[in-house]
Amino acid sequence: MSTTPTFKRLPRAVREQQMLDAAVKVFSRRGFHAASMDEIAEDAGISKPMVYAYLGTKEELFVACLHREGTRMMEAIAGVINPEMPADQRLWHGLRAFFRFVAAHRDGWVVLYRQARGEQPFAGELAVMRARMVEVVAGMLDRALRADGREVREIDLEIQAYALVGASESLADWLADRPDADPDQLAARMVNIAWLGAGQLLSGEVWRRPTEG
Amino acid sequence: MSTTPTFKRLPRAVREQQMLDAAVKVFSRRGFHAASMDEIAEDAGISKPMVYAYLGTKEELFVACLHREGTRMMEAIAGVINPEMPADQRLWHGLRAFFRFVAAHRDGWVVLYRQARGEQPFAGELAVMRARMVEVVAGMLDRALRADGREVREIDLEIQAYALVGASESLADWLADRPDADPDQLAARMVNIAWLGAGQLLSGEVWRRPTEG
Repeated sequence: MSTTPTFKRLPRAVREQQMLDAAVKVFSRRGFHAASMDEIAEDAGISKPMVYAYLGTKEELFVACLHREGTRMMEAIAGVINPEMPADQRLWHGLRAFFRFVAAHRDGWVVLYRQARGEQPFAGELAVMRARMVEVVAGMLDRALRADGREVREIDLEIQAYALVGASESLADWLADRPDADPDQLAARMVNIAWLGAGQLLSGEVWRRPTEG
Repeated sequence: MSTTPTFKRLPRAVREQQMLDAAVKVFSRRGFHAASMDEIAEDAGISKPMVYAYLGTKEELFVACLHREGTRMMEAIAGVINPEMPADQRLWHGLRAFFRFVAAHRDGWVVLYRQARGEQPFAGELAVMRARMVEVVAGMLDRALRADGREVREIDLEIQAYALVGASESLADWLADRPDADPDQLAARMVNIAWLGAGQLLSGEVWRRPTEG
């Protein structure tokens, strides 16, 4: 039960976070291809061989950035969803947290995400993260149905979750390009679309967000 | 009114299509970076300098492929939408045409699309095509509302169209990875999601496709 390993591990974790902070900044500013390990090392105040030793190649470093930022995003969403809420309220809180995260990370996560989207092997990493998100959403839908005493085939839940995640990503893209857009307002619009559906929207129905905000 | 230019133009158009067919095949098989102009020229049965003369650099050739395939996709959708149909039927016919196109072009359009998604300058080209698609969808929603004597703010139409296009793209991705999935069934599920909304779906309502198919 020596405490020595703790002394060694703590600074490593802290330094890794510093390197990741620097890497996110440099990748966002330069793009993956133009980003240099020299600049990342300099920004982190650590020698280049140490960056390689801690986090591996530039590809591995980029993947580590994606994972950290993606995990932060998922935690931001999961942190506001209370299983006791009615389903539409969970949708509202989850979407609001997601769009707020996007609006607050236009220069970091959004840039990384867009770079990763079409480029192998990063597109594969994103696909894995999206699949996890889809699973979470499908699980929420499933619980809402079971709470109601109903069951739906797994494939229907999966497809609904893919549609919801795809629509949210598309609107996150829209939001990222519009610095003046309000994430809360976008979340309320998206709940209207997803909860009421086009049929009810076309006939003039409206879902209203709770007044507590 | 000489007919000479016609004789010259006709083979040019035909040859261009042959080159594009070869280019789509090679880009899909190899990816943009690994694809060689030699292989494209050989596949098209045309000399490499002629490919450059007709369609420009490899980047320009890739963009020409994206445009041709994307235009075919949009025409496939536009061709089945009759403005006299009720809005849910237009949604059904449009989505079915889209998912059928994706299912029939898993090796061509889908591969190009995925390659283009994250790579500059192709991501920009795709964004322009997506924006056109969003405009078309927003226009359809607008007409459906006006036919009903109602008006909705442009931004609400735009956001609904972005959500619909994003959900459809996400499900197209799902479909592209599942060779056994039925595009018509996926379209019917997507109409349920988009037309009824999660609220009605959770309470057990179902939208059924017309029996004529």
